[in-house]
Amino acid sequence: MVYVYGFASGSKDQRDLLGGKGANLAEMTNLGLPVPPGFTITTEACRAYLSDGGEPEGLAEEITEHLAALEDRMGRRLGQVDDPLLVSVRSGAKFSMPGMMETVLNIGLNDDSVVGLARQSEDDRFAQDSYRRLLQMFGVTVLDIDAEHFSEALDAAKRARGTDDDLGLDADDLRELVGTFKVIVREQAGREFPQDPREQLDLAMRAVFDSWNGDRARLYRRQERIPDDLGTAVNVQAMVFGNFGMSSGSGVAFTRDPASGAQGEYGDYLQNAQGEDVVAGIRNTVSLAELAEVDRTSHDELIAIMARLERHYRDMCDIEFTVERGKLWMLQTRVGKRTPEAAFRIAIHMVDEGLIQMDEAVTRVTGEQLAQLMFPRFDESAERVLLATGMNASPGAAVGKAVFDSDTAVEYAARGEDVILVRKETNPDDLRGMVAARGILTSRGGKTSHAAVVARGMGRTCVCGADALDVDTKAREFRTRDGEAVREGDLISIDGTNGEVYAGAVPVSAALVVRHFEGEKVDDDLVSAVARIMAHADGARRLRVRANADTPDDVARARRFGAQGIGLCRTEHMFLGDRRELVERLVVAESEDDQAAALEALLPLQRQDFTEIFEAMDGLPVTIRLIDPPLHEFLPDLTDLSVKVALAEERGTVDEHDRVLLQHVRRLHEQNPMLGLRGVRLGIQIPGLFRMQARAILEAAADRTAAGMRPVPEIMIPLVASVRELEIVKADILAVAQEIEESRGVTLTYSVGTMIELPRAAFLANRIAAEAEFFSFGTNDLTQMAWGFSRDDVEASFFSRYFEHAIFDVSPFESLDQLGVGGMVEMGTKKGRKARPDLKVGVCGEHGGDPRSIHFFDKVGLDYVSCSPFRIPIARLEAGRSVLIARTNK
Amino acid sequence: MVYVYGFASGSKDQRDLLGGKGANLAEMTNLGLPVPPGFTITTEACRAYLSDGGEPEGLAEEITEHLAALEDRMGRRLGQVDDPLLVSVRSGAKFSMPGMMETVLNIGLNDDSVVGLARQSEDDRFAQDSYRRLLQMFGVTVLDIDAEHFSEALDAAKRARGTDDDLGLDADDLRELVGTFKVIVREQAGREFPQDPREQLDLAMRAVFDSWNGDRARLYRRQERIPDDLGTAVNVQAMVFGNFGMSSGSGVAFTRDPASGAQGEYGDYLQNAQGEDVVAGIRNTVSLAELAEVDRTSHDELIAIMARLERHYRDMCDIEFTVERGKLWMLQTRVGKRTPEAAFRIAIHMVDEGLIQMDEAVTRVTGEQLAQLMFPRFDESAERVLLATGMNASPGAAVGKAVFDSDTAVEYAARGEDVILVRKETNPDDLRGMVAARGILTSRGGKTSHAAVVARGMGRTCVCGADALDVDTKAREFRTRDGEAVREGDLISIDGTNGEVYAGAVPVSAALVVRHFEGEKVDDDLVSAVARIMAHADGARRLRVRANADTPDDVARARRFGAQGIGLCRTEHMFLGDRRELVERLVVAESEDDQAAALEALLPLQRQDFTEIFEAMDGLPVTIRLIDPPLHEFLPDLTDLSVKVALAEERGTVDEHDRVLLQHVRRLHEQNPMLGLRGVRLGIQIPGLFRMQARAILEAAADRTAAGMRPVPEIMIPLVASVRELEIVKADILAVAQEIEESRGVTLTYSVGTMIELPRAAFLANRIAAEAEFFSFGTNDLTQMAWGFSRDDVEASFFSRYFEHAIFDVSPFESLDQLGVGGMVEMGTKKGRKARPDLKVGVCGEHGGDPRSIHFFDKVGLDYVSCSPFRIPIARLEAGRSVLIARTNK
Repeated sequence: MVYVYGFASGSKDQRDLLGGKGANLAEMTNLGLPVPPGFTITTEACRAYLSDGGEPEGLAEEITEHLAALEDRMGRRLGQVDDPLLVSVRSGAKFSMPGMMETVLNIGLNDDSVVGLARQSEDDRFAQDSYRRLLQMFGVTVLDIDAEHFSEALDAAKRARGTDDDLGLDADDLRELVGTFKVIVREQAGREFPQDPREQLDLAMRAVFDSWNGDRARLYRRQERIPDDLGTAVNVQAMVFGNFGMSSGSGVAFTRDPASGAQGEYGDYLQNAQGEDVVAGIRNTVSLAELAEVDRTSHDELIAIMARLERHYRDMCDIEFTVERGKLWMLQTRVGKRTPEAAFRIAIHMVDEGLIQMDEAVTRVTGEQLAQLMFPRFDESAERVLLATGMNASPGAAVGKAVFDSDTAVEYAARGEDVILVRKETNPDDLRGMVAARGILTSRGGKTSHAAVVARGMGRTCVCGADALDVDTKAREFRTRDGEAVREGDLISIDGTNGEVYAGAVPVSAALVVRHFEGEKVDDDLVSAVARIMAHADGARRLRVRANADTPDDVARARRFGAQGIGLCRTEHMFLGDRRELVERLVVAESEDDQAAALEALLPLQRQDFTEIFEAMDGLPVTIRLIDPPLHEFLPDLTDLSVKVALAEERGTVDEHDRVLLQHVRRLHEQNPMLGLRGVRLGIQIPGLFRMQARAILEAAADRTAAGMRPVPEIMIPLVASVRELEIVKADILAVAQEIEESRGVTLTYSVGTMIELPRAAFLANRIAAEAEFFSFGTNDLTQMAWGFSRDDVEASFFSRYFEHAIFDVSPFESLDQLGVGGMVEMGTKKGRKARPDLKVGVCGEHGGDPRSIHFFDKVGLDYVSCSPFRIPIARLEAGRSVLIARTNK
Repeated sequence: MVYVYGFASGSKDQRDLLGGKGANLAEMTNLGLPVPPGFTITTEACRAYLSDGGEPEGLAEEITEHLAALEDRMGRRLGQVDDPLLVSVRSGAKFSMPGMMETVLNIGLNDDSVVGLARQSEDDRFAQDSYRRLLQMFGVTVLDIDAEHFSEALDAAKRARGTDDDLGLDADDLRELVGTFKVIVREQAGREFPQDPREQLDLAMRAVFDSWNGDRARLYRRQERIPDDLGTAVNVQAMVFGNFGMSSGSGVAFTRDPASGAQGEYGDYLQNAQGEDVVAGIRNTVSLAELAEVDRTSHDELIAIMARLERHYRDMCDIEFTVERGKLWMLQTRVGKRTPEAAFRIAIHMVDEGLIQMDEAVTRVTGEQLAQLMFPRFDESAERVLLATGMNASPGAAVGKAVFDSDTAVEYAARGEDVILVRKETNPDDLRGMVAARGILTSRGGKTSHAAVVARGMGRTCVCGADALDVDTKAREFRTRDGEAVREGDLISIDGTNGEVYAGAVPVSAALVVRHFEGEKVDDDLVSAVARIMAHADGARRLRVRANADTPDDVARARRFGAQGIGLCRTEHMFLGDRRELVERLVVAESEDDQAAALEALLPLQRQDFTEIFEAMDGLPVTIRLIDPPLHEFLPDLTDLSVKVALAEERGTVDEHDRVLLQHVRRLHEQNPMLGLRGVRLGIQIPGLFRMQARAILEAAADRTAAGMRPVPEIMIPLVASVRELEIVKADILAVAQEIEESRGVTLTYSVGTMIELPRAAFLANRIAAEAEFFSFGTNDLTQMAWGFSRDDVEASFFSRYFEHAIFDVSPFESLDQLGVGGMVEMGTKKGRKARPDLKVGVCGEHGGDPRSIHFFDKVGLDYVSCSPFRIPIARLEAGRSVLIARTNK
């Protein structure tokens, strides 16, 4: 077993063995770039160390050998008193991992060699500075001493000198600081700082190995789904010194601007400093252009190397370098992080430069990056007054007049005014107001509260749970913690990207990309990059993308955004507003005749809804889900109404209607409405309800067909657990269809299928498929039932603990739980297709718009995903990426 | 393809092909018993007829051939005018099936042959009576005419004659009735009665075939899980006549008493009558002993045949026979139905008579029969006054004084008085009262309401949903629909077997079997039969049987009843009563210290609970489930408290404690408590809670161990969905255990496992098993989550519709949904054992006491079932039967 590799014997493809940093150092070495020599102790050594509880046999000897070779090459020995070799020790796992011990510089210095270094470098200050840095880094990262102790001592020394800058400390000050640091080590770690350089090296290596199992590293891995058994590599490298006077320095650079994506190098340089100083921002850095003025040779060499790296890596690179007395050294490179707009621009620029193909360009951007480009933002330069901070529930920047109820929201909006709907929390009755508003602000509820979910669904900006605000809907105002009042009609601005709420109107930058998707002609290079990438993704993807949309407006927008049909048209929203009283009539109906009359009155209204939707989605499938929620959701809340009636009785002012209504609310009350009389159960209990809906859908389709259009309704039955339920309801629908076809003399194109949202349905999908012409996985409910928790109830109560304990890395309502719920989707799809090979299978939970989930749905072979209109471009892009990532990885 | 078999060419093992009746006729024919000759048209012919929509090719010819053979044998031809052959046509499916067309007698009679029959038999009255019977049966069963038309005409004829008895009608009366019946046929069926005998036969056969798909037959099959594609056979048999004067007659008989199981024949005989008259009870029958007086030869032959049949069938047989002018004919036999006590007695008698082995004897009785023997009953002879009828929620007969709250129930019980707890509905707070009461009566809620479930669990008699009763708990009385009041302290009697509620004390028969199980020495032959069967079942079974029990008393009873451990000891009941205020303290705790103090106060109480339970179950495993329900269940109801506080505020009398409590109740309120903060989530949210419980359990175990006993606690974590949850909680428990072991210097025998009650846990059981030392399937919650409905909410609202539509034949909460939930149990067990081969797997839902479910659990290889103490003997018996049925079927 070989545990140690010299830099010259590795390559960038060996990240598993050498870690990311080690692999890239090897790659640069082999490219002939000026990399200080060194070697990498492999992840295999780490794994052996961790499992055996000590260094594996032979490791010490290999290190000795490689160290000897390094010493020969450098002509100095570790610990040599007159001219010591110094080395750095750096961790480097396959994936970059915060929480692990990272770097100890200047290993090899001790009380003797620091004198030799001073003499040899003819720079006493440099030698003392290097030694105090070693003591500090070694103390903190190897001996686990609180960093505060060192930084306080450093600050004290600067105060004593009357300087703000560490350059203000001279050699003597630093020598004194070295003494202080040694005392700190002794007192805090209970041992002396080790004077033996090899002991320094071994301890640093072990500290790196041990840090793999530190709490933060473990938590990070769990959150990022990085396996626990990879281990980390350790890089040992000859030191070069950026702190060797003013002709030395350290810098970081990008081969393109990581913020805008513009072509051309971009970086920061700090004279007379070691690497960590640049990142820590202890002094002001200068730009690469300014480096050219100080040291043109190093600058030009750097620019040439960066160009070479970019061509070699075929991507924008991020590098770390050091100049030691005018000589450039490369210390690290990797593919650089970038902003969303930079990602799109860089991808397209590189295609145009011939560096990559379009296939690969699509894999270089993400749906989340596109999402960020779609949200409006506040101008960063604008002044603002912060009122409160809540949760960033649905991104975007919204400005409008504060209103406190739906009626007012609709009224303001009708006269063309932008409004922000402010509520303690929202419920389905607030829907009209939410539709009318630019944004929603609540003082209660988390990221999966009604307000948050609906807002995300509609692409409305939302800040929720801003609990510093005291919302008084009766007084039509809210107050901040400072007692400042915002009244109805006052302008406010909310930022759904960071959760902040501001007074007044903060200026907003328009999202050009959205205007482009909406069909506007936009002349902008970013938009054109996005458009080219979208076109290529659309050409490549296998998954079709549909929209979840309930209103003709949403349906029309979905179509503009590229929807290939409607995957979920909920019908319960059609029972709200003015129609609520008809539902009330249905609920309080004393006889079957009363019930029939109430349904009769709903029929033409529903038919009109569907007619408009079919018109907007002409020629494409529209999946309509028959009514799902329990009827009591359309009635007042039990507790509120009980209190109202009790108080009215006490005062002798009771309203007979309220009293009767309370009886029905009590009768229909359910302990667990999510697990009650809803979905297909309601359809079986009140057969007229589903029949009325089927009639409305199919009559609307017959009308459109007669008008020469091509409506394609897909009638979807919710909450089916047993094929028998579907059989009963389907027979009713087919009878209605036959009657309409006969009486109208038309042939309807329609199908009947089901949601798969109960574990039993997924488990017995083969049986369900005997009656279902299509499946649509309702992954929201499926998640609820699989885990046994309801979205409404759990987020506020215990999800934060679950994140802390890494039981989730993300809420399973935001991104599909692939292992559990995903496994059920896969099983259900396989079983369903086995029974009915041409079964159409889609998904209409919120997961249909989530990138990670979309890749999963593509892999398990679903036919389409359905998501809210604003997520459609994201889903299109990710569906393309899923195919192209697999293709480019081949 | 052969579609028709003569009786001589079949056997009793051909029920699939010949139906039950045909197979048994063939068997008797081959035994040489006097069976009128005939043939069977197979189920295959029926299936072909139904799928092709007409008679299959060759069937008509085969019938013609077999008819000719029958005619030759009988020396008469069908429709022969001077001496006609008459035949019966009877349906006979593999399983006896009400709702199918059954019998048409006397086929072959018409206007001509009736004259010949009269002449040949020298009995005009007999001939006319036979013809009117044909018209009547043919009209009703083949032509689908309402039976009322015929019976009204018959009654009119009798009235005209001034007689009550059909024997009072003479030949002329009957001839006139034949005329009337022909008119009825013409008017109601729109056709003449067919005079062609072969047409009569063919139409009757087709009617039998068609009746297979009648609504009632389909519904029956669905409810009994009989496949739809079996089809029915048709038996055509030469008529013999019980209505051929007073030396003829028809009878039914059993080879033993089907009510008591006593040895000796038992039957009813009716002179001058055809078979249907015996069953219809139109005249009084006589006993077999009386038959001996009338016709000793036939009687003796019958007794000899019955003895032979019983030896041949090795079981009690049920037969139908006819005597025609002194000659005995056998028309049917089958294994006879019997009462529970007869089942046990017959099984043991047959063992003692050497007819069967003990293995088979165990398969001849059922757990439900044993259950019926265990319930006390009201003396059938006693007088009683019915007050109302509710649902038979938990069987038994209970007498006691009506009380309307728990305190009063406990108070009365403490002074030795039996009470019936009467409530509108019950909740966990009524538990003390339910424990103290002999029976529970509610005016609301169905068979799965809290009252019903808890009562069944505790073996308390319960009538629920007696909605004719107006219960006024404040006035401490209830009123019947007639306005009669029953006040606190008045005696009432409730029958949980039929749901009836009586005034006063109705005398009760004690259940000897229960007294035997309780350890009393009972000298009774039924008890001894039960004991022998139980001992054999115990020796044979593979499944272990544990109890669900939460109190030391229940645990002790469970042990007497044969429990091999506790499979579910719920700890939430230990938080009720006086301890409720400690839970309130925990909930309203403002700081971690307050919380810790509340937990500290609960610790010794919990420890004492467990100490007593370990003592009662010494040496056997006790599975203790850590607290499962959400904490708000221990607090007042939101609506009630809101109304109370609102009214108090209105009156200016508000109580500060209530106001604070309301805030917390509101904070903890959940839309869907079943899907909220409960089980392991609570344990992770308030880690001290589980730690306190683990400490109480393990300290109690350490105490008992120190006292020389062998406590075997199994700590069970509820509601686990992800292995990570279990990992976190288990680490805490192990730490507590280690600390106790070290501080006490004892070694504890304990294990940590989990409920599998969420679909995700079943699906990912392999992962869960990495941390769980045992699984216990919580099939109640698993059913709720798999189907997405909660037991509390759905029964009242839509289950009745689901039964009507045959979506269920039984509630999935009463008997396991084997296909769906059972499939998940099987999958979870397999996956779990794959990851951990020695995983102990049990079930602790209510299904653990349900016979059908127990057989399933045995087949999928569970280690044990756990059920309420009163179901333990039933589970033991069924676990034995499961093994023995498989063994005897080999």
